[in-house]
Amino acid sequence: MKPLDLLQQSLHKPVLVELRGGRTIRGTLESFDQHLNLVLSSAEEHDAKGENPTPRPGVTLVRGDSVIFISP
Amino acid sequence: MKPLDLLQQSLHKPVLVELRGGRTIRGTLESFDQHLNLVLSSAEEHDAKGENPTPRPGVTLVRGDSVIFISP
Amino acid sequence: MKPLDLLQQSLHKPVLVELRGGRTIRGTLESFDQHLNLVLSSAEEHDAKGENPTPRPGVTLVRGDSVIFISP
Amino acid sequence: MKPLDLLQQSLHKPVLVELRGGRTIRGTLESFDQHLNLVLSSAEEHDAKGENPTPRPGVTLVRGDSVIFISP
Amino acid sequence: MKPLDLLQQSLHKPVLVELRGGRTIRGTLESFDQHLNLVLSSAEEHDAKGENPTPRPGVTLVRGDSVIFISP
Amino acid sequence: MKPLDLLQQSLHKPVLVELRGGRTIRGTLESFDQHLNLVLSSAEEHDAKGENPTPRPGVTLVRGDSVIFISP
Amino acid sequence: MKPLDLLQQSLHKPVLVELRGGRTIRGTLESFDQHLNLVLSSAEEHDAKGENPTPRPGVTLVRGDSVIFISP
Repeated sequence: MKPLDLLQQSLHKPVLVELRGGRTIRGTLESFDQHLNLVLSSAEEHDAKGENPTPRPGVTLVRGDSVIFISP
Repeated sequence: MKPLDLLQQSLHKPVLVELRGGRTIRGTLESFDQHLNLVLSSAEEHDAKGENPTPRPGVTLVRGDSVIFISP
Repeated sequence: MKPLDLLQQSLHKPVLVELRGGRTIRGTLESFDQHLNLVLSSAEEHDAKGENPTPRPGVTLVRGDSVIFISP
Repeated sequence: MKPLDLLQQSLHKPVLVELRGGRTIRGTLESFDQHLNLVLSSAEEHDAKGENPTPRPGVTLVRGDSVIFISP
Repeated sequence: MKPLDLLQQSLHKPVLVELRGGRTIRGTLESFDQHLNLVLSSAEEHDAKGENPTPRPGVTLVRGDSVIFISP
Repeated sequence: MKPLDLLQQSLHKPVLVELRGGRTIRGTLESFDQHLNLVLSSAEEHDAKGENPTPRPGVTLVRGDSVIFISP
Repeated sequence: MKPLDLLQQSLHKPVLVELRGGRTIRGTLESFDQHLNLVLSSAEEHDAKGENPTPRPGVTLVRGDSVIFISP
């Protein structure tokens, strides 16, 4: 299975997304497209040290270009 | 629903846009296209610490390339 | 209306353009294309702190790739 | 053989992936595509000094754009 | 007129080109293409503070990708 | 001969590859494609000062996007 | 003449290439393509201060993406 097919398995599950510039965002993966644009619900942003969580209520759209990696 | 379809739900509502280089901008999402170019009204820019808000009256066009994520 | 259509409304009006690397440039928007290449007249460049304005007489062409956002 | 054909030989084997921004990630290469998007299982992230391993259980999707190099 | 048409007016005239990374280069604009690749004659490079001019005799080719803006 | 044709002459010979972010990698060039994705065998990574060599046994795939230059 | 046609005039002549990240490389331009991939012979690399020349014997391939400008 190709990488984006494997990402299907994470739909509606919590993921951690590491972003360019050192920030990370955690949330439930609700949707993605082939550019790796992502929609997360109940998201929480963390700074480069993984600290200072900021809740992002509602749905957060992450631009695929900013994604370094996505893990459960 | 694909990520950009979900962004439809934020039209005419306040959003927070995190930009490359650490700045954030808040405003009402008036329009977007498939490149994630955005138009915000009543926008307010914040520096990397989320401080020093600078009002941006009128409509602000954000280049999609600069967007890290968009949340309500 | 799509974002670039809304930018039509700023033609021949003063705009502030925030650029990658922290610089900003103010001027009258004379022209733009779909890449967000811009032409400004009577432009003035500011450093990352918004200080030290440097006048740029004549027409200044800003490469779209360098644009973070454009506001009135 | 072309580079991506040679990467076939690393499928289901442990790899070290060096990422933009100095981080590295180790894991078992489960899948990749022509953009070098990768799926790793049993991954472990390291900081820029190769220290502070953080386990990433489950499957981690690495965006190809973030990859500097991949070695066994 | 579109931005690149307006740049025609600067042909064979002195321009200042601001480059990524803070450097600037001044010279006479001899040619450009749609990627904003530029050829300058009698060019002079300046560091990020606009100091330490280094003459670049002959014709200098600037890669369009590196251009932030071009002004007279 | 075009640049990539000249690179053919380095096949199966030792090369030094300078990477974005200051790292360098030395090894034997086993394969490359038109994106400058490279495969090196018997590779050795060096930090930004050219020090602290880390051997990378097996074949290392370098993403073309990360390459600054390749020399013998 | 378009920029890349003017670069023809520098073939087999010494050039200075300024690279992203502050490094420069000098050598004889032996070949280039439309992406500005370059081949230099008898090249010499300099650090961001233009110091510490490192000779690069044989032919060096510079990735076009890394080029800021090329001058004689």
